[in-house]
Amino acid sequence: MKDGPLDRADLHGRVQKALDTFLDEHQPRLRGVSEDLDVLLDVLRDLVVGGKRLRPAFCYWGWRGAGGADDEAIVTVATSFELLHACAIIHDDVMDASDLRRGRPSVHQQFASLHRGAGWRGDSAGFGVGAAILLGDLCLAWADEMFTASGLPAEALRRARPAYDDMRTELMAGQYLDLLEQARGVGSVESAMRIVRYKSAKYTVERPLHVGGQLAGADTAVLDAYSAYGLPLGEAFQLRDDLLGVYGDPAQTGKPAGDDLREGKRTVLVAMALEQATVAQADVVKRLLGADDLDDAGVAALRQVIVDTGAVAAVEARIDELRQSAVGALRDSSIDVDAHDVLRELAAAATARRD
Amino acid sequence: MKDGPLDRADLHGRVQKALDTFLDEHQPRLRGVSEDLDVLLDVLRDLVVGGKRLRPAFCYWGWRGAGGADDEAIVTVATSFELLHACAIIHDDVMDASDLRRGRPSVHQQFASLHRGAGWRGDSAGFGVGAAILLGDLCLAWADEMFTASGLPAEALRRARPAYDDMRTELMAGQYLDLLEQARGVGSVESAMRIVRYKSAKYTVERPLHVGGQLAGADTAVLDAYSAYGLPLGEAFQLRDDLLGVYGDPAQTGKPAGDDLREGKRTVLVAMALEQATVAQADVVKRLLGADDLDDAGVAALRQVIVDTGAVAAVEARIDELRQSAVGALRDSSIDVDAHDVLRELAAAATARRD
Repeated sequence: MKDGPLDRADLHGRVQKALDTFLDEHQPRLRGVSEDLDVLLDVLRDLVVGGKRLRPAFCYWGWRGAGGADDEAIVTVATSFELLHACAIIHDDVMDASDLRRGRPSVHQQFASLHRGAGWRGDSAGFGVGAAILLGDLCLAWADEMFTASGLPAEALRRARPAYDDMRTELMAGQYLDLLEQARGVGSVESAMRIVRYKSAKYTVERPLHVGGQLAGADTAVLDAYSAYGLPLGEAFQLRDDLLGVYGDPAQTGKPAGDDLREGKRTVLVAMALEQATVAQADVVKRLLGADDLDDAGVAALRQVIVDTGAVAAVEARIDELRQSAVGALRDSSIDVDAHDVLRELAAAATARRD
Repeated sequence: MKDGPLDRADLHGRVQKALDTFLDEHQPRLRGVSEDLDVLLDVLRDLVVGGKRLRPAFCYWGWRGAGGADDEAIVTVATSFELLHACAIIHDDVMDASDLRRGRPSVHQQFASLHRGAGWRGDSAGFGVGAAILLGDLCLAWADEMFTASGLPAEALRRARPAYDDMRTELMAGQYLDLLEQARGVGSVESAMRIVRYKSAKYTVERPLHVGGQLAGADTAVLDAYSAYGLPLGEAFQLRDDLLGVYGDPAQTGKPAGDDLREGKRTVLVAMALEQATVAQADVVKRLLGADDLDDAGVAALRQVIVDTGAVAAVEARIDELRQSAVGALRDSSIDVDAHDVLRELAAAATARRD
């Protein structure tokens, strides 16, 4: 995203700086307890360096779009979303037993390696999971600490709290529904889209915009415009992510090729494929998706079948439609015109093909 | 604790009522997402019914001891500690692979049973762990939501925030050090006591008192007195818990007899036993503690050896000493005299033998 929307207001660099400042301040506090805690910060620093900063960007531009002036306090609040997201991905990788994240071993795998390398007692995988649960918890608590101690007036924080609280509840709720969907294997397009709405669309786009807007004292018209822009865009973002999980280049996604197929993820893409499949195609999907012995040839076969059902083209069309709907919502909206260009660029960046 | 300190100000009932109110308010919000989320609230309601409410009590009396008047807002803040603790025990049980909590299946076991009973796809244990991680996360977020939306003035909340934030960081840090201690198996009394300090003493007693005190605008003398009372008491509380984990009656602890011995927990009790053991006694402890094939006879043998080393008597003596130190700190302190009796009773209740 070089020269992209995150370079506006130098947001990428300022978010990194705010993260560094926060973690630097906490280092001596943890050291005061024990030097053994250094590793928690080391792992976290490595993880957050790789973030795309989409949620901070939506929070920041939610503020600007409601007439808020640029300052460091809003960047700090926006940065807190990156810590919340760190919790989400650390715990998500534990739940999905994912080995890689952002091109590196996932957090629980890093702690398992630490255990293995040190030759400690007990089960290395169990140690990795335990440490990852705790580091995720710490990130969730720290996100809230950073949000609250940002320096914004108490009255602004009070206004934005309900949106912040709803977002966290919706995130956990969406994650649970996702877990349930994988377990039930029902996989209708409708139920998959409901998960996308809560787990991704609200959490990644709509709520960060709302929080930023509420902090700046946005009126209902602006908040409604954020929903009209944010919900379709967030859905499009997740659909792009679904495609990348199946067809993405590992160098770009930081995950193995076809990772979602090996995990057997019941995404909207898979649900669409199953809805449009012939009996023979559906048999291939059901047999191979998430199969323990799925090899590269199996991944290739699954990819082809999903294309053949027309699901890929359908998802691409849906992404286009959703993005246009999002961008269209900016026109004639009460959102400050200064933010329109960036929100349009963010819509493109969040949904762009990466191939 | 009938007629005990929690009956003062009818705290037990009021905390339960505040929990019910909070969860009742969230039920329709979750329903609005999906009826499939009902189970999260059902499991949580069952879990929180069984709590001892120690942390809410210390927060509430921290407020009263600093001159705060009784009202519902402080009870709501105090109740938020019970949700924070729900997160701690749900995640702790996942990390320890504990099957029982408060006499019922642990949360991850309940969700694993749900998965098994429904005949869903994939691994039931994995589903249980995933759901428990998410419900714990929800509790951590909700604790903070309840704390912030309690109705106390923003200025009071701002004063108490640092103590609240420190407590959460110390809790996660202490839990990680505990995980590390179990893995390393070093087990000196000193390192075990450091874990007790952060994981239990500060989290269970000192910080809840500080938060209550800060909310009421306590001066440094009162906060110092809370530390002088709270740290030794919190250590004594954990030492009692160590003894109960080895010698407690399952009907009282809600856990299987000798549970900590089967798990191989490196507690202060075990560290003291190893320090005072003869070579032969130490061999027994090292061979049996946490052994995969530890049976009832093995548990009985371990219990006897730990008694024989003198560790049980030493821990009992230490509990007495710590409790006396805690109660002694009340005398001549700046803590409001109205709170002295209850804090003395809470010290007794938190450290009493239950046999």
